[in-house]
Amino acid sequence: MANAIRSLSMDAVEKANSGHPGLPMGCADIATVLFTKVMKFDPADSKWADRDRFVLSAGHGSMLLYSSLYLLGYEDMTIDQIKNFRQLNSKTAGHPEYHFAQGIETTTGPLGQGVGNAVGMAVAEAKLAAEFGADLVDHHTWCLAGDGCLMEGISQEAISLAGHLKLNKLTIIWDNNNITIDGAVSNSDSTDQIARFKASGWNTIEVDGHDQDAVEKALLAAKASDLPTLVAAKTTIGFGAPKKAGSEKVHGSPLGAEELAGAKAALGITYPAFEIPSETLSAWRAAGTRSQNVRGEWQSRLAASAKKDEFERRMNGTLPAGFLEAMDTYKKKLSEDKPKVASRKASQMALEVINKAVPETLGGSADLTGSNLTNTPETLPFTAEDRTGRYMRYGIREHGMAAAMNGIALHGGLIPYGGTFMVFTDYARPAIRLSALMGQRVIYVMTHDSIGLGEDGPTHQPVEHLSALRAIPNLLVFRPADAVETAECWQLAMESETAPAILALSRQNLPTVRTEYTMENKSARGAYTLVGDLDAEAVIFATGSEVAIAIEGMKALAEKGISARVVSVPSMELFAKQPDAYRAEVLGKAKARVAIEAGISMSWDKLLGDKGRFVGMNSFGASGPIDDLYAFFGLTPKAIVEAVTAQL
Amino acid sequence: MANAIRSLSMDAVEKANSGHPGLPMGCADIATVLFTKVMKFDPADSKWADRDRFVLSAGHGSMLLYSSLYLLGYEDMTIDQIKNFRQLNSKTAGHPEYHFAQGIETTTGPLGQGVGNAVGMAVAEAKLAAEFGADLVDHHTWCLAGDGCLMEGISQEAISLAGHLKLNKLTIIWDNNNITIDGAVSNSDSTDQIARFKASGWNTIEVDGHDQDAVEKALLAAKASDLPTLVAAKTTIGFGAPKKAGSEKVHGSPLGAEELAGAKAALGITYPAFEIPSETLSAWRAAGTRSQNVRGEWQSRLAASAKKDEFERRMNGTLPAGFLEAMDTYKKKLSEDKPKVASRKASQMALEVINKAVPETLGGSADLTGSNLTNTPETLPFTAEDRTGRYMRYGIREHGMAAAMNGIALHGGLIPYGGTFMVFTDYARPAIRLSALMGQRVIYVMTHDSIGLGEDGPTHQPVEHLSALRAIPNLLVFRPADAVETAECWQLAMESETAPAILALSRQNLPTVRTEYTMENKSARGAYTLVGDLDAEAVIFATGSEVAIAIEGMKALAEKGISARVVSVPSMELFAKQPDAYRAEVLGKAKARVAIEAGISMSWDKLLGDKGRFVGMNSFGASGPIDDLYAFFGLTPKAIVEAVTAQL
Repeated sequence: MANAIRSLSMDAVEKANSGHPGLPMGCADIATVLFTKVMKFDPADSKWADRDRFVLSAGHGSMLLYSSLYLLGYEDMTIDQIKNFRQLNSKTAGHPEYHFAQGIETTTGPLGQGVGNAVGMAVAEAKLAAEFGADLVDHHTWCLAGDGCLMEGISQEAISLAGHLKLNKLTIIWDNNNITIDGAVSNSDSTDQIARFKASGWNTIEVDGHDQDAVEKALLAAKASDLPTLVAAKTTIGFGAPKKAGSEKVHGSPLGAEELAGAKAALGITYPAFEIPSETLSAWRAAGTRSQNVRGEWQSRLAASAKKDEFERRMNGTLPAGFLEAMDTYKKKLSEDKPKVASRKASQMALEVINKAVPETLGGSADLTGSNLTNTPETLPFTAEDRTGRYMRYGIREHGMAAAMNGIALHGGLIPYGGTFMVFTDYARPAIRLSALMGQRVIYVMTHDSIGLGEDGPTHQPVEHLSALRAIPNLLVFRPADAVETAECWQLAMESETAPAILALSRQNLPTVRTEYTMENKSARGAYTLVGDLDAEAVIFATGSEVAIAIEGMKALAEKGISARVVSVPSMELFAKQPDAYRAEVLGKAKARVAIEAGISMSWDKLLGDKGRFVGMNSFGASGPIDDLYAFFGLTPKAIVEAVTAQL
Repeated sequence: MANAIRSLSMDAVEKANSGHPGLPMGCADIATVLFTKVMKFDPADSKWADRDRFVLSAGHGSMLLYSSLYLLGYEDMTIDQIKNFRQLNSKTAGHPEYHFAQGIETTTGPLGQGVGNAVGMAVAEAKLAAEFGADLVDHHTWCLAGDGCLMEGISQEAISLAGHLKLNKLTIIWDNNNITIDGAVSNSDSTDQIARFKASGWNTIEVDGHDQDAVEKALLAAKASDLPTLVAAKTTIGFGAPKKAGSEKVHGSPLGAEELAGAKAALGITYPAFEIPSETLSAWRAAGTRSQNVRGEWQSRLAASAKKDEFERRMNGTLPAGFLEAMDTYKKKLSEDKPKVASRKASQMALEVINKAVPETLGGSADLTGSNLTNTPETLPFTAEDRTGRYMRYGIREHGMAAAMNGIALHGGLIPYGGTFMVFTDYARPAIRLSALMGQRVIYVMTHDSIGLGEDGPTHQPVEHLSALRAIPNLLVFRPADAVETAECWQLAMESETAPAILALSRQNLPTVRTEYTMENKSARGAYTLVGDLDAEAVIFATGSEVAIAIEGMKALAEKGISARVVSVPSMELFAKQPDAYRAEVLGKAKARVAIEAGISMSWDKLLGDKGRFVGMNSFGASGPIDDLYAFFGLTPKAIVEAVTAQL
């Protein structure tokens, strides 16, 4: 049965003339045991909520997964898809792409990410099991990782978090093949991985990855452990290839006709390319159906459960009925109270409403809770001892946090949000990109969003980050101006089912600028005229903490007899999606156009056009009190007045 | 003597009403031993090449360093600077900023970075010692790291690399205080750090961080070890503060008047704020001078050394005399040969010239040597056994690689370059930002720079990365169009003494477009007219692999009777620095303006202006053969023709 994986993988890579045969050949025995004997899933219902999750962290070995999905009988994974490996518009992309085919639980390829995703999935399972009971939620997360995954720093963040949280339903299978792209692992690494995982509180098991019985025993022992388990499986990369097995030559290129023929001969594969003997295929397909009864029993339990509706709502990702009303009531109150608070504080105030109305939020922070203000009365910690908690103490692990949040969102049933300083989006960027690529509802609460954080200085002050984040496709970047916009942006982030959101929030206090209540979520338009007449001589665009400065600029212009209008731009992405007529109205025909933002101009250039002027940063920041910094870098009403008058 | 650090640190944080007193108070004993008894340095010559390096990876504890520098007698660290802690334009920024004051060896604050820097410094030391002998190079690197540094994934990359390379002249002192910002370390981490470091091949020593004799013994034992050493120093954060010591409350805010008075009383500090008793100050100052004889002897050895001139050239960062001529000869040959090669291959060809002419390059790759083509005949590996090697096998550790390269550059005497796939600049981004902030000559060889890499798909295809990198201040982003431009850009990167460089290089073959030799380095202008008349009706801007497509577009336009000009833009940053007249000439007054680049438009918006059109990407990429992808995403001569004709 393992040879079926090997032959399909070799054939597909050969036909595509591109791809990675080494891992599928080396891990075929492991995958065979895992998929045909150990894991719980049903190809007939690939989204079954209580299925085991499988994460191929070593995503370059995608043919291992595609071959297995085909063999197990997932209906969309046809032999034609296998034959179209790595071709445009096939389901069998170079690396596994979430959404492309059933049974692909996450997009992998950037190494180490899958380990973080798997930790998040195991967190979600534990949390939902605590909420809904083992009758409805009781499954395991399996992650296949290579040496590359384990060398990436993110793996340390993930495994130390998993060990700390004693995520016993998580198993990492390490494809221990001693080979990296550049040659022997020993060229670049001497880590004792067993000792390393033990140091992080893991159970460890060593096994011969080509001894299927031993692998089965190891995986079952891992499943039974009360700790997360590393199964270190000794394998031969490119197992079966007569000349290239065990070397880096078989990692990432087709075998070539001769070596392929030799491999098939050595493995006893006598059938033609892309053809699996019916006996073998039948055995695989039968294995694919073996959890059908278990699923049937589960569905009966669900049907009989008092928690059925809530469970289904949660797994469907639909927000609860009371959410909109709670947000609206809260917005009304804000416009009356007109609080002058930092938008990070406004975020916490919004979260107090959200966490009360929406039980599926799972908050957290990378050890900056008191700064990010990501906690509310509801957010007791999720710990090894108490899985009912709604708050992840992620530790100083921004990258691991983001990858885990991807896993939590992918698992379903929970909406993860997590905080750190905005400048540290850089640490989490590869995982943020994957949130966007996979279209996951992950909410990044990024506080201290400019030089406005003051004394901590340039290492902590985002300057290029707003532009750099806006550059990522399918990512919503929100920078609200006051408590009302913060509530609106939080609502939009919660409602965004196919794109992650960044909330860029200030450290410093901001006055309420949306003093008149509107039921309409104005931030949903991305940009709107906050104050001033449409036919004003000047238009001033601003976001976040600079909106209040823009209003001061407008007043200063008025004193000079120049009329101006202020447009708040909480989200450039949403504004870009508005109808042309609305965009034209907001952009207007003012003679002078200025934008102010405490960051670089890049993402503003298009909106400003040839004649517009930008008031912002063009260098790194500096350490000093906030008022000194805003004055030093010229983020002032005066600078707005000068930019406008220069144009008029 | 340790109380002198504590009192200055408490006073400075209190006066600034901002900062982190906890670490300086907790680590004062360690710093006292390290600076007054163990380390080799001379405040009178802060750039002495053979000094020990100290890295405060836990950069928030900056007052520990500033206090020590003042006490040791570094002349620019006056008491007024201490009093101006965290004020604009002081040398005593919130976090230590390289360049700001003598004795600050690197900019720290983003956690874990200093650990990577220290590894790089130790690599540089070992390499230079092998080249110049222990007579000239024989010093130690000391790094003080907190729990946050060790939780960050980058620390795992750094320590596993250091352990593998047996960097015995490296010591990490772990400020083991059990506290993070959110509370007890045990809230978020249970790692057995001793076991973890041992698993990476480190020597480990545990010590009471407040027992100065024990600390001295531990540090000397670390220095004598034949392995890198972790000194796990048990400390009390905020040592001496009566109510807040040992808790997170003393980490990142001033003590407050009452607690400060209590701490001083408890510590027996009777002298006024910012005043150190002359006896104590004298003892510190005497300690500061204790390596003067050692330095004198070293200078005598240098003066007598046959390697003096070369050593000084290397440490000054001056390129060797033959470099320019070698590059020029090579360029001439290229314009004659007109090779059609990928720019990653062209980069290797350039490196073959550079590595022969410039002995101080230290190459490497994050396990993608055969893809990045960062190797040449000169680049034998730098290993635990052979320190003469010129190539770092960084392993799958992009972030650790970048941070180590920062350390290598900061150490001096070497020019580091390192490769990975362009998309994985995201993994290294926090360290790339620090290269730019510190203005270090670090060269990032980033291959596979667009959808042109083909089948690996969207996880491996940079789309937003060119814009996102151009967004970082003081970073030179080069995207050369052919082998000639690649040589020119490499030359510019080598000559860039105050800014790091990214070389964005293609996987696919590119024709030589610079077929006529010019002595002038045209890429130095950032953008220039490659082909066509200045008064053409259309101007087409392009970079890298799209320049050849732009030329095809120009030809297609000519067939339609439309004249066009192609401008190659190897570096937007350098173009932005050109005189207005030159910029105006290149931009020209063509009726149609188009840019083509296999990335998003953001960084082009300014140059394109209101009427310009962009041919590029506005989504993630896809998996497929390159030709299919370029056609699918419309990166074609036809799209250029359409964009031009739509404008005319």
